[in-house]
Amino acid sequence: MPTLRVVLVEPKNEGNVGAVARAMRNFGIEDLVLVNPVRLGPEARQRAMHGADILERARTVKDFEAAVAGADLLVGTSGIDTESEKRFARIALSPRELATKLQNAKGQVALLFGREDFGLLEGELRRCDLLVKIPAAEPYPILNLSHAVAIILYELFAARAPGRAVREMSGLEKEKLHASFIGLLDATDYPVHKRARTQIMFRRVLGRAIPSKWEFQALMGVFQRATKRIRRLQGER
Amino acid sequence: MPTLRVVLVEPKNEGNVGAVARAMRNFGIEDLVLVNPVRLGPEARQRAMHGADILERARTVKDFEAAVAGADLLVGTSGIDTESEKRFARIALSPRELATKLQNAKGQVALLFGREDFGLLEGELRRCDLLVKIPAAEPYPILNLSHAVAIILYELFAARAPGRAVREMSGLEKEKLHASFIGLLDATDYPVHKRARTQIMFRRVLGRAIPSKWEFQALMGVFQRATKRIRRLQGER
Repeated sequence: MPTLRVVLVEPKNEGNVGAVARAMRNFGIEDLVLVNPVRLGPEARQRAMHGADILERARTVKDFEAAVAGADLLVGTSGIDTESEKRFARIALSPRELATKLQNAKGQVALLFGREDFGLLEGELRRCDLLVKIPAAEPYPILNLSHAVAIILYELFAARAPGRAVREMSGLEKEKLHASFIGLLDATDYPVHKRARTQIMFRRVLGRAIPSKWEFQALMGVFQRATKRIRRLQGER
Repeated sequence: MPTLRVVLVEPKNEGNVGAVARAMRNFGIEDLVLVNPVRLGPEARQRAMHGADILERARTVKDFEAAVAGADLLVGTSGIDTESEKRFARIALSPRELATKLQNAKGQVALLFGREDFGLLEGELRRCDLLVKIPAAEPYPILNLSHAVAIILYELFAARAPGRAVREMSGLEKEKLHASFIGLLDATDYPVHKRARTQIMFRRVLGRAIPSKWEFQALMGVFQRATKRIRRLQGER
């Protein structure tokens, strides 16, 4: 299992933040990061119970990027799914599928939970390698924030088992691979209006595949090779 | 699936009762019975959100027996497990095992949740046909009451929810994508001795990612575009 970090983006209710800290203690996760949170007072501490130390050691940061710094895989949670494959930004795994995927993963995984009212914003969702949606019933499938955290952490705890020793690509390597993919799109004059969604498509496919270090290098090799070939041939004209 | 009833035995915190009503609405369960509860005020209603009607229609009863009247199967929840088979009253299933067991069951099932501090009493546990314990981490495996309800209802809901409806690429499409990847390797004069393992790498990565139809088309588009660009530039030399 990877190391897990729980990130709450702009939580508005201090009781929820306390309840999240308790759930983290219940499932053995200690790293809590709060992006621009409500002021935490006695209610947060009371709801945290034996998770009070997690609350005290929680890091408060100003923005999303600071919260995910150093994380190798960004997992966003969303209460909204989509039927449309084109709205790829919203195609989500179930918590169980996430647990299975992470079972043999290594590195740092940031689990991102959005605001109580608006969830994660579109731009924040686009930064995520994987999306998770908790299956729930219409017409009101929107869970309380700490319930959502508890269910995801429960699934990850339940799945914990001794894992394979395959090394996975780090966050830094991952970004190099994405840069090489973008380089290839550039070299082919890929249409501007399709570009953003194609890049996100590639991020999501890789997010689900969780490539090994070797697979990452091989893929990057193919992309860079194609890009260089195009550039060299263009230079010869 | 059987009909589910949620029974809270002597809940002391009205916020928890409200949060339970919300979780029930989230997972499509409406029958709530409260045994000798705390007085419910504005905090309960506020935490219930769209579960407020469940809270209003909740039946309040004086004792355990009245709460389980008419139920065909009594399922008790416990934060404490036991290693000893002699203390049979505490041998518990996991929430997932419970979901599997109930999948083909019929009739009325009462899910019983105890007091925030003492849980269900020994005599109440002995009345239960099944016990469930949510796996959690030492040294503090005791979940918040509404978190426990949310996790059990989530498991029962997930067991009967249909899978994702995203169209996956067919075997034929998959082979077309692999052919386009090979075409790109060809166009770049990819070294012969690396070729087989690079093709297998790509097959494995995609196998794990299980791309949708749309993702498959977008990836194939990128590869074919790069290949054509190289071929055209070569033709111009």
